[in-house]
Amino acid sequence: MIQNKPAEVGMSIQDVDTPALIIDLDAFEHNLNLMSKSVANLGIAHRPHAKTHKSPVIARKQIAVGAVGQCCQKVSEAEVLVAGGVDDVLISNQVVGSQKLERLAGLACQARIGVCVDNQENVEAVNVAASKFGCQINVLVEIDIGAGRCGVAPGMPAVKLAETIEKMSNLKFGGLQAYQGRAQHIRGFSERKIAIEKASKYVLKTIEFLKKAGINCPLVTGGGTGTYQFEAGTGVWDEIQAGSYCFMDADYGLNLTENGDYFNTFRNSLFVLSTIMSAPTKDRAVLDAGHKASAIDSGLPRVVDLPDVEFVGASDEHGTLALGRNAPAVSLGQKIKLIPGHCDPTVNLHDWYVGVRENVVEAMWPVAARGATF
Amino acid sequence: MIQNKPAEVGMSIQDVDTPALIIDLDAFEHNLNLMSKSVANLGIAHRPHAKTHKSPVIARKQIAVGAVGQCCQKVSEAEVLVAGGVDDVLISNQVVGSQKLERLAGLACQARIGVCVDNQENVEAVNVAASKFGCQINVLVEIDIGAGRCGVAPGMPAVKLAETIEKMSNLKFGGLQAYQGRAQHIRGFSERKIAIEKASKYVLKTIEFLKKAGINCPLVTGGGTGTYQFEAGTGVWDEIQAGSYCFMDADYGLNLTENGDYFNTFRNSLFVLSTIMSAPTKDRAVLDAGHKASAIDSGLPRVVDLPDVEFVGASDEHGTLALGRNAPAVSLGQKIKLIPGHCDPTVNLHDWYVGVRENVVEAMWPVAARGATF
Repeated sequence: MIQNKPAEVGMSIQDVDTPALIIDLDAFEHNLNLMSKSVANLGIAHRPHAKTHKSPVIARKQIAVGAVGQCCQKVSEAEVLVAGGVDDVLISNQVVGSQKLERLAGLACQARIGVCVDNQENVEAVNVAASKFGCQINVLVEIDIGAGRCGVAPGMPAVKLAETIEKMSNLKFGGLQAYQGRAQHIRGFSERKIAIEKASKYVLKTIEFLKKAGINCPLVTGGGTGTYQFEAGTGVWDEIQAGSYCFMDADYGLNLTENGDYFNTFRNSLFVLSTIMSAPTKDRAVLDAGHKASAIDSGLPRVVDLPDVEFVGASDEHGTLALGRNAPAVSLGQKIKLIPGHCDPTVNLHDWYVGVRENVVEAMWPVAARGATF
Repeated sequence: MIQNKPAEVGMSIQDVDTPALIIDLDAFEHNLNLMSKSVANLGIAHRPHAKTHKSPVIARKQIAVGAVGQCCQKVSEAEVLVAGGVDDVLISNQVVGSQKLERLAGLACQARIGVCVDNQENVEAVNVAASKFGCQINVLVEIDIGAGRCGVAPGMPAVKLAETIEKMSNLKFGGLQAYQGRAQHIRGFSERKIAIEKASKYVLKTIEFLKKAGINCPLVTGGGTGTYQFEAGTGVWDEIQAGSYCFMDADYGLNLTENGDYFNTFRNSLFVLSTIMSAPTKDRAVLDAGHKASAIDSGLPRVVDLPDVEFVGASDEHGTLALGRNAPAVSLGQKIKLIPGHCDPTVNLHDWYVGVRENVVEAMWPVAARGATF
């Protein structure tokens, strides 16, 4: 179930077998360094989300330029990160069921592990597992600040959970998880900013209620690539969880900045390299990359550097290009670079990152937590 | 990069970790036996598509009940099938590039291998690889019969390719690949039937042109789960490639039969088992299965056996359920069965099939060609 490597170090990018997941190492390093400076300037900690990259290699690079640790969504991702040398992992998500909770507690014997809760019984279940393993787990209360997914309502429901956590033998109240997922892809700059300012009031309210109950809130964490500057600007958050910034994707490129430009502060560093495998008509070419190579839940991939060539449709193993009037001639076997519509689920389709610099393969990194869904 | 097994043989389905890919073995065997009888009655051969299941275990079971071999889309899938004991594989797709073609030729030393072409230069490239390995490859000409993807136009372009194939030292003209992918999910019965009848005329025209050129067409292959009865009915096809019938998915369930009923001749045998990991409000519950557990390119998954409960949205690791007025009470940790919107890309997200009979895990089958995209 481990598939062949699509490339070897030293190869030209022209010889990489396709479809392959390419990292432009210059652009990737640019993004890491830029974010490092950005969060330093903003005076906020950064805990990048490993749900994007699923790679301890990338996690360690992020930590090397200042990140305080990693967050992820699943215990199986945390297992891969800890095994790969990351010693501070927050699961920014609920973990339910004794099998998963025992794996979580086992990990907490090896590394600093945090987890989020939004349910009283679940707090007790986390403690049962932590007690069995004699470890301590940081438990954050997730509040729903507008995403409408998980999390308790801000205010008293969060206080009640924090009180329960504080009563538990092997748990420590770690603060608030406050992520406004829906705001990340709001296109307009001021609309996005307003969504976070609104969200910040829910967080402040909860901190006040905690204070009234005599509970100190040690940390507020959340925020993504689309909004992290706003979270930092409110002064309410201590830590941001931006993950996509290291790769960027076609969808984030449609967000607008303060000046009305497209959001391209971070460069596209992640590509799906594909090959033209059929060119049956003058206005159509077919790529060897479809749903199983590039996720389309946030839109189709975008073709790089070919004017008037558009990726117009995908099936399982095929991508269809429409060749417009001004399109350059294309040929069978030609390699085409695509910017995925959405990085995270695209990465999860591949076993290997092919790291490329100046058209030469410099690194092969496994997508070590690919398929780590439980 | 191989993830933990979500289950062990002998477990109750309640103890399976989630998200997990479940096969209801009774329904699956029903589907295999029903298709076996159906194609026997129709007097047509069946070469099931392994792009659906990516498993030599399932391939061998299909062959055991009468299938003549397998088809697949990628050389890497064919490699997994041949290694798993399948000795007759048609790649119902173009293979471009010397790396892939040499792997194809290597396989043809071990098993009966066919491949499709729609380009003159590609025919020569296939022959170069076959000559290098001293093997013979069956080469079918793909014609576009209405799908608008790969394939040459019916008639003379196909004849020219067949003539080129016949001139090659190590290739054998294997016939025509004629698949009307767009027709599979046309909802209305007669509209679907008409699309295939129209397609059959393109095939007949091509066979006539081949005959005039003195070329016998040894095989016409194509047809999927949505249309195979129509292909058989025309008398033009010799072999059908239906693959989804073994699992079925939510989208195929929306096709209509002759009587206007939903198409449920084959039973849903494939499910994503998930767990309620958050139940923050009365009208919402959140599952631990999102884009990384169930593909949404053909629509969201459908919830099994829970009235007034609807899967209304997915993010990477979460699925949101809307709980209507008449929904039963749900609880944290409750296991929920989902019918994927589209089987093929969903299977490709998982490492293991969990085969279940009467709620007990009976088999663990690897999704051996998961990620086999090149």
